[in-house]
Amino acid sequence: MNIGILGLGLIGGSLGYDLRSQGHHVLGVSRRESTCQTAVALGSVDEASVEMSLLGIADVIFVCTPIALIVPQVEQLIKHLNAATIITDVGSVKAPIVQAISPLWSRFVGGHPMAGTADSGIEAAQKNLFVDRPYVLTPDANTPKDAIAILEEIVRSLGAKIYHCQPEQHDRAVSWISHLPVMVSASLITACMGETDPEVLQLAQNLASSGFRDTSRVGGGNPELGVMMARYNRQALLSSLQQYRHNINKFINLIEQEDWTTLEAKLQSTQQARPLFTD
Amino acid sequence: MNIGILGLGLIGGSLGYDLRSQGHHVLGVSRRESTCQTAVALGSVDEASVEMSLLGIADVIFVCTPIALIVPQVEQLIKHLNAATIITDVGSVKAPIVQAISPLWSRFVGGHPMAGTADSGIEAAQKNLFVDRPYVLTPDANTPKDAIAILEEIVRSLGAKIYHCQPEQHDRAVSWISHLPVMVSASLITACMGETDPEVLQLAQNLASSGFRDTSRVGGGNPELGVMMARYNRQALLSSLQQYRHNINKFINLIEQEDWTTLEAKLQSTQQARPLFTD
Repeated sequence: MNIGILGLGLIGGSLGYDLRSQGHHVLGVSRRESTCQTAVALGSVDEASVEMSLLGIADVIFVCTPIALIVPQVEQLIKHLNAATIITDVGSVKAPIVQAISPLWSRFVGGHPMAGTADSGIEAAQKNLFVDRPYVLTPDANTPKDAIAILEEIVRSLGAKIYHCQPEQHDRAVSWISHLPVMVSASLITACMGETDPEVLQLAQNLASSGFRDTSRVGGGNPELGVMMARYNRQALLSSLQQYRHNINKFINLIEQEDWTTLEAKLQSTQQARPLFTD
Repeated sequence: MNIGILGLGLIGGSLGYDLRSQGHHVLGVSRRESTCQTAVALGSVDEASVEMSLLGIADVIFVCTPIALIVPQVEQLIKHLNAATIITDVGSVKAPIVQAISPLWSRFVGGHPMAGTADSGIEAAQKNLFVDRPYVLTPDANTPKDAIAILEEIVRSLGAKIYHCQPEQHDRAVSWISHLPVMVSASLITACMGETDPEVLQLAQNLASSGFRDTSRVGGGNPELGVMMARYNRQALLSSLQQYRHNINKFINLIEQEDWTTLEAKLQSTQQARPLFTD
């Protein structure tokens, strides 16, 4: 199959390695000529170009640009394609993308491979990045069944675990387990830094160990990614944050009222619930 | 030196191993005869008894019981001691303990070794548990200098890093880096479990990965420990929680107002601040 990849970063480049190893002919497009050359030299793609017209012969195209560029790039891309081409994307938020692209291209299936590393760029791309990782697909009732089936077969060949859901369900789920934790964790850091006694602040920094390290990790991550989550998944994240604040208030009330029995019951329930997410 | 250990669990038992290896004669007291026998058999203490009178000849006594028992046990202990004996404790909250014991025993120095494992009990005790770990001491202006010096020498021999501060400063510092993260993290789990669409909840559980795992870890820990933190460090924890809620509100407001510039600046500041706590 001829498979196109638009955007040759960590995800696009990694897809290229795996799809080539499955015997597909992989065509890559990047805005930068140097990235095109690197992608070919590394063996991530068979051919690469800064021109979208390269993708005219592709049967399936993965759009792997930063999320802000997915819709505008697809708008430019489609004039080069024949109507049979399947388009999918790898954006970490689905509803706004699916809503924008579905009216433009009937053979579009939203996707989100939940894989990544702390690094980015074509140099960070690696083989087998998607093995045993979740890969969410968000077709709707109008998505042609054959397009879904073809895409599923490709995703399955990456070794990924496929989940189907509505775009809005995806966005709510990732707001709980990915976007809310970033804000929860960042707020922990800003709250601690607000300590007004410099001796206490210094002591806190000296005494912090694995508990603080883990709870603050995602709040100390890439600021641009954090803004992107908030920007593109704003409604779901706000809803999660408001629910979260409600729960913080409940904990504060229990401690104010010295209701240790209920507090212990709540902490027992969190101890029991956590493995549902992590096992 | 004769060193007494009252309470032969993870911390008491581990202290015993290290103090014996430094050449001290270690006397252990536990409420359970079986624990006494185990501690002697494992080599954590030289002698052990369920009777506090065993500690009558000790020069220094570490009180290593659960936090709720520290003050009542010291009240019973002191009738067996001569006035030169130094008492210290290992409780994770300092102000209420120091306030209760200082009037009873002038040669008391509050302490908190910041070391532990997920396990508890004498069987979990291990050698060199305190190496390179913080060990906070909270003497006040009235604490005899020689008592502080003797205790410091012992703590230094464990390989620990000694910090001095007021009991209230200790309690505020640990509320930031240890007790607040537990409530922050537990609230994340309870908020997620409050998702009303069972398909979204199931999807969230399937998609959760390292970010959620880390942020939720301490909220899924021992419920009794969580209650103990809240109970004994109530004022400091409430103050931290209120500051934290204030910061959550700020994040919510920025996202509501779509003020992406300020949000990115805040996330940049958390990215810069986190290494102050973790490096």
